[in-house]
Amino acid sequence: MLNTLIVGASGYAGAELTAYLNRHPHMNITALAVSAQSADAGKLLSDLHPQLKGIVDLPLQPLVDVAQAAQGIDVVFLATAHEVSHDIAPEFLAAGCVVFDLSGAFRVQDADFYSQYYGFKHQHADWLAQAVYGLAEWQDEKIKQAQLIAVPGCYPTAAQLALKPLIDGQLLNLDQWPVINATSGVSGAGRKASLTTSLCEVSLQPYGIFTHRHQPEIAAHLGVPVIFTPHLGNFPRGILETITCRLQAGVTAQDVAAAYHAAYDDKPLVRLYDKGVPALKAVVGLPFCDIGFAVQGEHLIAVAVEDNLLKGAAAQAVQCLNIRFGFPETLSLL
Amino acid sequence: MLNTLIVGASGYAGAELTAYLNRHPHMNITALAVSAQSADAGKLLSDLHPQLKGIVDLPLQPLVDVAQAAQGIDVVFLATAHEVSHDIAPEFLAAGCVVFDLSGAFRVQDADFYSQYYGFKHQHADWLAQAVYGLAEWQDEKIKQAQLIAVPGCYPTAAQLALKPLIDGQLLNLDQWPVINATSGVSGAGRKASLTTSLCEVSLQPYGIFTHRHQPEIAAHLGVPVIFTPHLGNFPRGILETITCRLQAGVTAQDVAAAYHAAYDDKPLVRLYDKGVPALKAVVGLPFCDIGFAVQGEHLIAVAVEDNLLKGAAAQAVQCLNIRFGFPETLSLL
Amino acid sequence: MLNTLIVGASGYAGAELTAYLNRHPHMNITALAVSAQSADAGKLLSDLHPQLKGIVDLPLQPLVDVAQAAQGIDVVFLATAHEVSHDIAPEFLAAGCVVFDLSGAFRVQDADFYSQYYGFKHQHADWLAQAVYGLAEWQDEKIKQAQLIAVPGCYPTAAQLALKPLIDGQLLNLDQWPVINATSGVSGAGRKASLTTSLCEVSLQPYGIFTHRHQPEIAAHLGVPVIFTPHLGNFPRGILETITCRLQAGVTAQDVAAAYHAAYDDKPLVRLYDKGVPALKAVVGLPFCDIGFAVQGEHLIAVAVEDNLLKGAAAQAVQCLNIRFGFPETLSLL
Amino acid sequence: MLNTLIVGASGYAGAELTAYLNRHPHMNITALAVSAQSADAGKLLSDLHPQLKGIVDLPLQPLVDVAQAAQGIDVVFLATAHEVSHDIAPEFLAAGCVVFDLSGAFRVQDADFYSQYYGFKHQHADWLAQAVYGLAEWQDEKIKQAQLIAVPGCYPTAAQLALKPLIDGQLLNLDQWPVINATSGVSGAGRKASLTTSLCEVSLQPYGIFTHRHQPEIAAHLGVPVIFTPHLGNFPRGILETITCRLQAGVTAQDVAAAYHAAYDDKPLVRLYDKGVPALKAVVGLPFCDIGFAVQGEHLIAVAVEDNLLKGAAAQAVQCLNIRFGFPETLSLL
Repeated sequence: MLNTLIVGASGYAGAELTAYLNRHPHMNITALAVSAQSADAGKLLSDLHPQLKGIVDLPLQPLVDVAQAAQGIDVVFLATAHEVSHDIAPEFLAAGCVVFDLSGAFRVQDADFYSQYYGFKHQHADWLAQAVYGLAEWQDEKIKQAQLIAVPGCYPTAAQLALKPLIDGQLLNLDQWPVINATSGVSGAGRKASLTTSLCEVSLQPYGIFTHRHQPEIAAHLGVPVIFTPHLGNFPRGILETITCRLQAGVTAQDVAAAYHAAYDDKPLVRLYDKGVPALKAVVGLPFCDIGFAVQGEHLIAVAVEDNLLKGAAAQAVQCLNIRFGFPETLSLL
Repeated sequence: MLNTLIVGASGYAGAELTAYLNRHPHMNITALAVSAQSADAGKLLSDLHPQLKGIVDLPLQPLVDVAQAAQGIDVVFLATAHEVSHDIAPEFLAAGCVVFDLSGAFRVQDADFYSQYYGFKHQHADWLAQAVYGLAEWQDEKIKQAQLIAVPGCYPTAAQLALKPLIDGQLLNLDQWPVINATSGVSGAGRKASLTTSLCEVSLQPYGIFTHRHQPEIAAHLGVPVIFTPHLGNFPRGILETITCRLQAGVTAQDVAAAYHAAYDDKPLVRLYDKGVPALKAVVGLPFCDIGFAVQGEHLIAVAVEDNLLKGAAAQAVQCLNIRFGFPETLSLL
Repeated sequence: MLNTLIVGASGYAGAELTAYLNRHPHMNITALAVSAQSADAGKLLSDLHPQLKGIVDLPLQPLVDVAQAAQGIDVVFLATAHEVSHDIAPEFLAAGCVVFDLSGAFRVQDADFYSQYYGFKHQHADWLAQAVYGLAEWQDEKIKQAQLIAVPGCYPTAAQLALKPLIDGQLLNLDQWPVINATSGVSGAGRKASLTTSLCEVSLQPYGIFTHRHQPEIAAHLGVPVIFTPHLGNFPRGILETITCRLQAGVTAQDVAAAYHAAYDDKPLVRLYDKGVPALKAVVGLPFCDIGFAVQGEHLIAVAVEDNLLKGAAAQAVQCLNIRFGFPETLSLL
Repeated sequence: MLNTLIVGASGYAGAELTAYLNRHPHMNITALAVSAQSADAGKLLSDLHPQLKGIVDLPLQPLVDVAQAAQGIDVVFLATAHEVSHDIAPEFLAAGCVVFDLSGAFRVQDADFYSQYYGFKHQHADWLAQAVYGLAEWQDEKIKQAQLIAVPGCYPTAAQLALKPLIDGQLLNLDQWPVINATSGVSGAGRKASLTTSLCEVSLQPYGIFTHRHQPEIAAHLGVPVIFTPHLGNFPRGILETITCRLQAGVTAQDVAAAYHAAYDDKPLVRLYDKGVPALKAVVGLPFCDIGFAVQGEHLIAVAVEDNLLKGAAAQAVQCLNIRFGFPETLSLL
């Protein structure tokens, strides 16, 4: 049994993560923590997330002293704000914990990226260099060795799973940048009071055009430029990405299918569609990323869906945990 | 042309009210105002409510000095918080304005009611005594004479329109209190940042059981006790009320129908259903209250629906305006 | 391992049932069946319910010959239309299968009930007499002995779980009939093409006032008359019931709480709220019925929520299975 | 006063159209018609669309004899299926009526298009040649002369309004085809029983990839190839299109803004955003198309929103009517 601490358990991804770990046969949830200032400190997790009543009734403890909190802990999950992860991850790492960080604090190795896109100056170049990007289907060998796993962002997970086999297989004509149109459920904005997420205000709309921080995350890890346009959708959970690409001359639908099957046939959490493309509902509440595509002439449209809180956050974190410690990859996830 | 000032135009009811008055042939919107502290001061109404872009692009001015704001104004609409209306209505009245107050500040003549249900001590017993309760279908003679019209709450409007003909007609056995189950859209909670109204959090649920301030408002104006149970529904607008009553022995469905028709056949904003009961969608975006009912033995179930922002707020305010000044009752509403 | 056949697996409750049984360690799904005429015959379950892709990809086989289908089968689940269950259950029973029927065909022992409320004449008075009503928390001793378990309707499950402790404890003044206002998600209408369930048409509204077949089901099993008013809500899943009752003089909130705790403290799938009442979201996707209440004077309002497809159908069927065969009551459900 | 007949008034666009024409000061609705086989024949429009109760209670008459129905009619609106419009429009035209056809039957002049995309062979090449495509902002001179106005499809209206100023102004590098990602509300599928539109089934998803008939409609009228990917959204009304284009080298955001302003500053039903891009809610229930955009380097993203039933159907039809007969362009629409 591994002793685990979950920091930021009060959020949507944190609660999902807690539910997964609560039923994981090799994990012992030692404590749930929230920031010391949080109004949720002292409450039960199930007070905030009533679906967990009777399942996980643990209290949310204020995280006051990281060194003390790290004592006896094998594994830490950080479902915290980017700056918070940036600040506390090194202390947990120094105490010998294996850290799975669901924030963006260690996802991109170029420290300047943080000044530009996250609004803070990154202080931990050493850990940035050591962090493994936890795109589970592609990084399993590195994850097995890592002490710090930077779990990818929700949008980047689906985008990279859909594009990486095509780019690695040199199927795309990259003179034309892949156009990623993505729509996310409102839970992607986090659990907090905000007029923006009010049921009365939410309405399908693009945001962060040309400026969203997930664009460079995707581009950096794929190694190619992309146009990424996120949208806020009027539903609580899930992400659908419609990706329009130019194929190299002569590339066929069969070539595309072959690339996908080669990449994912032995990957239990990516489901490929031989006909048609997935709908969002196929994955809501489930740890999968589903991918389908269509080709016409030199044009390819790939569609990827995932639950932003699961394969886009909590489930991928647990998947990385399972890979890291040699457990079956889908343990507690299915 | 009447010069009008709308205070609290930035909210959902305020914006609807502004749209109605903007197209009203006898009204001149002199200014839109918000509280001096509001973060919306200085913005255009259409910045907050983009559907009004190009239709009402007036700025939201901070209300700093009531006496000055009242100069040259004939009519004031207060779509403000209860305490704010309580504080500023008397100044506008003293300046000779006719005031339509959409808050609860002047709805119940018993001043103690405010200490108990609204959390403040009412200071204006004189105006409470003079205020006319603007349940338009039942108070038109008084409205014509009033300087201060207290527009009823959203839940009380539908409840009273459904129950008043039955109670006045002595059709009900009141040993058994009428049971009013009501479900409101989220806009009833107002336009503000709140976790409660987040699309991720909203889920059908009762609230304020036995304690909601609209229960005594309904009971006071009907003159009978009621059980009122409001629910938050997962939709932006509208209220549906299902009201279960005991009939006096011998009272028939025909008697009930006759009472409703006698009350409302000449009222343009109440629509009666001769068969079946209304669905919420019948009234969303419209100024009507729709009523239907069914009888079995001594049991009656009446169903009333309205748009909480319209017949439950803005449209009824304009209906009262039209009655007060002798305009056609539905002017600018249909 | 028990060999099981699921008839009607293509519907919403059938698919949930299949997912539960697929992960049940003592059940072997031998086949999924649909009616011989169904347009879904020959498809995979996961073609209809894409969330099951890769989890349950079994084909939907047309049920042509019941006797043949029953060969080698230990347990049959019928998630079929009432008339279909009525017709085929006896054949499965004759072949020795244990039958869990999710339809209404064997829920009420009075055969006349079927002529009046279901529109067909019941032909199997013998099986009606032997059928055990599978309200799991209250019928476990009988379920253990039964060959035919009639799983309760979705509305009746929540209503009875909320009312039965109060009625059995003689806490209610039944001169005033309990008023049950219930709102169900659209999946309660089944998986079929219908204008009524179109996203464009659905809008909160009552239906079947005084005439819904679940009213006599509730009344028959509770032994008291009730007023039951179902509503269609604008959400896919879940039922919320707000139940208004008159208490006997002198009965207190403590008495009510004591009755609930005595009934359910050892029941894993009923969760009691010591403070407040549940919201629908607490149970969507989960096998629980959650109950809370409030008392004021002689008035009691109890609120019960469940997922109509789970505790109101599939989960309760599996719970009955577990009780029937001596498995842990929540096996495969949590 | 112009006598008008509305065929297909029972559908969503038909009902909106009827409401507009009902309040139009120069239009006299002589009759509402549905196809002779329709189950809705004989009902009141307000039976189907309860929001119109008391506003438009006209009966839906079966259309049996077109020549007879055309007698005394000045203007006919066809909100009918493509094949129906194709069959009956010529008869109304022969009788001298001005016809506004909301179907696709006369939108593209190449008759082969209908065999390929609509599944029927077009029989009326003469009327195809005479039909004017009613993209109101661009075709007003032709509309004034036309007897047959083919009102554009919902998706093509927004797409063309957003792209035409850019293409006409030669601002785009068309080596890279414009990528139009569009999401429509469910009402776009029409008012009919269908599992696809069930609230339980609808979930964000692409459909008709590379094969939707609106792709060639857009391409034909713009004169350039496009990639058009429609999606079904989980909301009743509205369309949002996110259009990604490559600009010619040297073209700036100022150039794009200038092109839009030149095209639309005098057009009352197109609203331009100088900052940011529109959300869907800005136009739901309103006759506008709102357009905003962003530029980065050689990449342009334009966003256009409209209500698919209004600017995408009924409102544009009335706008064309107003242009055709010299009424103010927004008469009855605002």
